[in-house]
Amino acid sequence: MLKGKVLIAQGGGPTAVINQSLVGAILESRKFPGVEHVYGALHGVSGIVGEDFLDLTQETRANLEAVAATPCSALGSTRDKPDIKYCQEISKVLKAHDIGTFFYIGGNDSSDAARIVAEHAQATGHDLTCIHIPKTIDNDLMVNDHTPGFPSAAKFVASAFAGINQDNAALKGVYVGVVMGRHAGFLTAAAAGARLYDGDGPHLIYVPERTFNMNNFVGDVKRVYAKHGRCIVAVSEGIHDAKGAPIITSLMKNVEKDAHGNVQLSGTGALADLLCDQIKAKAGIKRVRGDTFGYLQRSFLGCVSDIDQIEAREVGEKAAQFAHFTNKRHGTVTIHRTGNYAVEYKLSPVSAVAAKTKVMDKGMINKAGNDVTDKFMKYLTPLLGTGGLPTVSRLDRTNRVKKILNKK
Amino acid sequence: MLKGKVLIAQGGGPTAVINQSLVGAILESRKFPGVEHVYGALHGVSGIVGEDFLDLTQETRANLEAVAATPCSALGSTRDKPDIKYCQEISKVLKAHDIGTFFYIGGNDSSDAARIVAEHAQATGHDLTCIHIPKTIDNDLMVNDHTPGFPSAAKFVASAFAGINQDNAALKGVYVGVVMGRHAGFLTAAAAGARLYDGDGPHLIYVPERTFNMNNFVGDVKRVYAKHGRCIVAVSEGIHDAKGAPIITSLMKNVEKDAHGNVQLSGTGALADLLCDQIKAKAGIKRVRGDTFGYLQRSFLGCVSDIDQIEAREVGEKAAQFAHFTNKRHGTVTIHRTGNYAVEYKLSPVSAVAAKTKVMDKGMINKAGNDVTDKFMKYLTPLLGTGGLPTVSRLDRTNRVKKILNKK
Repeated sequence: MLKGKVLIAQGGGPTAVINQSLVGAILESRKFPGVEHVYGALHGVSGIVGEDFLDLTQETRANLEAVAATPCSALGSTRDKPDIKYCQEISKVLKAHDIGTFFYIGGNDSSDAARIVAEHAQATGHDLTCIHIPKTIDNDLMVNDHTPGFPSAAKFVASAFAGINQDNAALKGVYVGVVMGRHAGFLTAAAAGARLYDGDGPHLIYVPERTFNMNNFVGDVKRVYAKHGRCIVAVSEGIHDAKGAPIITSLMKNVEKDAHGNVQLSGTGALADLLCDQIKAKAGIKRVRGDTFGYLQRSFLGCVSDIDQIEAREVGEKAAQFAHFTNKRHGTVTIHRTGNYAVEYKLSPVSAVAAKTKVMDKGMINKAGNDVTDKFMKYLTPLLGTGGLPTVSRLDRTNRVKKILNKK
Repeated sequence: MLKGKVLIAQGGGPTAVINQSLVGAILESRKFPGVEHVYGALHGVSGIVGEDFLDLTQETRANLEAVAATPCSALGSTRDKPDIKYCQEISKVLKAHDIGTFFYIGGNDSSDAARIVAEHAQATGHDLTCIHIPKTIDNDLMVNDHTPGFPSAAKFVASAFAGINQDNAALKGVYVGVVMGRHAGFLTAAAAGARLYDGDGPHLIYVPERTFNMNNFVGDVKRVYAKHGRCIVAVSEGIHDAKGAPIITSLMKNVEKDAHGNVQLSGTGALADLLCDQIKAKAGIKRVRGDTFGYLQRSFLGCVSDIDQIEAREVGEKAAQFAHFTNKRHGTVTIHRTGNYAVEYKLSPVSAVAAKTKVMDKGMINKAGNDVTDKFMKYLTPLLGTGGLPTVSRLDRTNRVKKILNKK
């Protein structure tokens, strides 16, 4: 039951709509008459340990709505993944402030943190409910049909490739765009949303669900280039060889690793450059350009899916409702698709989501491992929003003027 | 006088609004009763030589309007810079097809091509008028207050940095964003349009109008990082050392050069990576990330300044009107600012624009060479469009909850 003090925090990488979930949870919590205060912790779990709380009960609705429309984490975020000792510290603070409900918005690491905190509270006789609210542009949370943040990032990637397709048609050549995604290829696959006419790019899509083979890649590019006189490639930053080693490590001397021991993939243009060099050297194509989409994918101002905005708001609201009506100590709000297209929300066990990674269904990737299937397009299309992408139109190429001089 | 056959072509790098100019020129030309056909050449001057013409007289207004709203060059573009022999070939084709007016949409190279073609036609007794229609995201055309394409690219860059600012505030660290611009820093400087609150990034801006010094750069980053606990940097791809050598060349082994002998700056993430490595090594900051904005800047679908759309349409329309009412054989449409904010258009001599590069006024860059001035902000702001950027809002940081455990 929602009463007393409620605490909200945001963890992991920002998204375009994570503040919708924050504001959904705040406003819905404030509706329950037993709720005295809604606190927000600055910079996720690290702000809990430091008691860095804002009293969100003292925020106007107008400002909260403006914050909801702002990308990235308004409370700040953290990459800290709490261990048992860290959770004891969190627990101590929550107890001292008499927090009855804790909402943690984040990816699968954050869902696990919510569970550990809840179980630790229970063991120490603290009456605490912890609800995890999903978000991640990687779209890699189990149980969920998709996760808030992904649809807007997917719209960014599809919009980028739609523009690149126009650009590349105007000035021919090979273009390689590197998209975020360590283990799950959903966001890279969303590049396919850019296609409208026959021959439109991206012509090739490589995701980390499949082993990446450099010779096959170069062969694919040569084939497409021979057919269309141009070639656009979408590649996940997480592509790896048969041994599971990221392709990027074959280039870089000093590989940076994060607190979880993961190789740094984002924030460097090395992979795009490596792939371009390979195409120039092995396919003998001169005009080869590569971009790494980088942080723009998750934070770009003004590129958002309206479906994503609505759902992100709803998972926040549902978290408050579930917290009030459940007798469970912890859980995660999950999104389930119904029809084509609506969703419904459930409170699912954290254990079904935590420390797990959802990847693309086999049926979403073609046999050759260099494109997506119609199944994926059916999955993706409604997520891009009710308006889809802006129109892309062409001049009618059949109105050709008869040549006078050059009659061959 | 506009009559008989009119030919239009697009040259150089695409922009978000270059098709507005195309459609403006087509529709306005079609209004003059003496005009029999409006042709479009595919891929700029190379399509003229190859007689690759579309008859745009047979395009519907609805489709032309849809094309106008589509980014990049609908007719295709080219990097060819015609020499005298090339222009003789062009002239031969224009004469064979009895073209009376030629509109060439492009940057300063394209304006020069328009002049050479016009003069060659005159010398061979062909009654031809050539009008150059300006476009370039670099904003580097002389005489013009600004050039169509720049405002939309500037809006993209400002929107990107506004999002990055939110992202970087949520997960602290140093961020380096590399923006297009070989000699002119306008587009990089447009990153300053992202700032709203005190302490917002970009905190440092480096443009090619000033010599880049690596030690000063690292010192600037350290100072900002010490003050804000984070630092966002906008850097032009064209930054160079005191000898004029691009900073990127100090890293790359195999530097690619284009037909004009220019070093390839875009389509590689090398400069951002180099700068990040320097910050890590010399400033001892761990979380340093770099992105190269690349081709998204000029082609991203759905990020456009409405002011830019209108003006790009108008320069196309004005080209047709000037061509009809002038008795000059060639000229370039130029944009002049009046009041705050409106523009007027003139037909200026091509010689004032061709083979020249406008750079930022000294007064637009601060003394230290690491930021822009209010003068630049006054120049930039109206160009971002009537709505400006989407809102960015924050939670009220004064509603702090009193600490209970951690009383220090």
